[in-house]
Amino acid sequence: MSDIKRAPRPTRADFRHFAPVETRWLDNDVYGHVNNVVYYAYFDSAVNRYLISEGRLDIHAAPVIGVVVESGCKYHASFAYPDAIDAGLAIGHLGRSSVRYELALFAPGEDVARVEGWFVHVFVDRETRRPAAMPADVRRAYERLLR
Amino acid sequence: MSDIKRAPRPTRADFRHFAPVETRWLDNDVYGHVNNVVYYAYFDSAVNRYLISEGRLDIHAAPVIGVVVESGCKYHASFAYPDAIDAGLAIGHLGRSSVRYELALFAPGEDVARVEGWFVHVFVDRETRRPAAMPADVRRAYERLLR
Amino acid sequence: MSDIKRAPRPTRADFRHFAPVETRWLDNDVYGHVNNVVYYAYFDSAVNRYLISEGRLDIHAAPVIGVVVESGCKYHASFAYPDAIDAGLAIGHLGRSSVRYELALFAPGEDVARVEGWFVHVFVDRETRRPAAMPADVRRAYERLLR
Amino acid sequence: MSDIKRAPRPTRADFRHFAPVETRWLDNDVYGHVNNVVYYAYFDSAVNRYLISEGRLDIHAAPVIGVVVESGCKYHASFAYPDAIDAGLAIGHLGRSSVRYELALFAPGEDVARVEGWFVHVFVDRETRRPAAMPADVRRAYERLLR
Repeated sequence: MSDIKRAPRPTRADFRHFAPVETRWLDNDVYGHVNNVVYYAYFDSAVNRYLISEGRLDIHAAPVIGVVVESGCKYHASFAYPDAIDAGLAIGHLGRSSVRYELALFAPGEDVARVEGWFVHVFVDRETRRPAAMPADVRRAYERLLR
Repeated sequence: MSDIKRAPRPTRADFRHFAPVETRWLDNDVYGHVNNVVYYAYFDSAVNRYLISEGRLDIHAAPVIGVVVESGCKYHASFAYPDAIDAGLAIGHLGRSSVRYELALFAPGEDVARVEGWFVHVFVDRETRRPAAMPADVRRAYERLLR
Repeated sequence: MSDIKRAPRPTRADFRHFAPVETRWLDNDVYGHVNNVVYYAYFDSAVNRYLISEGRLDIHAAPVIGVVVESGCKYHASFAYPDAIDAGLAIGHLGRSSVRYELALFAPGEDVARVEGWFVHVFVDRETRRPAAMPADVRRAYERLLR
Repeated sequence: MSDIKRAPRPTRADFRHFAPVETRWLDNDVYGHVNNVVYYAYFDSAVNRYLISEGRLDIHAAPVIGVVVESGCKYHASFAYPDAIDAGLAIGHLGRSSVRYELALFAPGEDVARVEGWFVHVFVDRETRRPAAMPADVRRAYERLLR
């Protein structure tokens, strides 16, 4: 685990957009901290919220949807309900039909992330599930967050 | 279902404490609205947040914990991620070791609840799980929300 | 809580269909037992599985969907991951567009339920969300479970 | 995404232990397939079930607990509730206080994984959360699954 500990942890300056995350009672598992799985739900929710508000994505009717093809997370320190969390978001790579999100979770007042993660969305046709160009509004919203 | 439709729906005036609820991507099910189960998680989380902040409940170490013995919910109209929600909370009944919470969920700007629910906590010894008197700080926090 | 304790708890003979429920790590909360919210997910999942397999409900494309308008649960004794659970299901009331499910959760080898619940589905048009007659195959599947 | 598509996908022969996973209604998101986050819950649950049954881990009282420090997943093809899933598990690396799990999810009758993932547990003292040697029974259970 020493590699993980030595890796530089991201700071707030590495991100372009921030959103609050509200922890829930059931996010904590029997060990009294937020379960490792739940951080991915925070990521997913923060990204989609940005896509809806900034990229005008209509999750119910848009002909193109984003599907996750790969994801990962490093857990440096834990959170526990009812902690407040700030999620930082940036775009690490932007292709024609795919995008890589870089994310991190910060405690209020802390500059170094406790948790960092990433995932890749590929845009596909809602019906055929074949790769498709991402909507123009979504692309513009991504460009504003490019590292 | 006509009975449910005719029942008067609670309004904001019926509640004593309000807290925001943040919806998550995965709260929506395939039908595109918040799944019925998830509203109970909103209730659970809002109540415990109040117990921790106002009742000084230590969920990790307190010798007495609240366990749910009964719960219920009526769904008048739906929410969908990424909606914002206001949760209203009041105490309907306060016994020696038990308490009944009355809850409702409002859309911002709406006075009539879309969802209403309730549940009963019985306080028990963390180890033996036998009924026990609730902590004094918790009781005082409840008394401030009595209808 | 004395009323709850005195109420007769359902037994296996009260149900017409049984399905196994697999508990998950995150079903347990910090108190080390399955969280009260999660039991509703067990109910929801058991019912929809029956509708899909026995009622041939196409949850992705059927023109009519079931929405939950009311639900409730009594918790007599707890489960904890990795417990095995048997869910019992019966139909308590069957109307033109609505149905009331009666459910209970049993530990293997136990005849008395640890948890009992119920919920009401109203069938609505997927687009307009106005009440609609339930599909004929679904109705036949319900009739086989009537008490 | 071409790299992901070209990577050889794991097959059943790559794993040493298999366990069924039961999908739930709420695992599906609005796009009608199991949400990417939920696969991590399947992994977490399959591993802990093995630790409890084969490694005799007492999740409620053991002085040493496993905390996740890193995880990742590749999604080649999707599942949807009510699909049945077989989870395959193997140990990729076994240290003094850490272990790396390799996991994959298969549809019944399919030999090539639809989803593959991994995560690293570090064993820590339950109170101090400092690294600690893993229990002997747990280590033996791991050794049986080493690749």
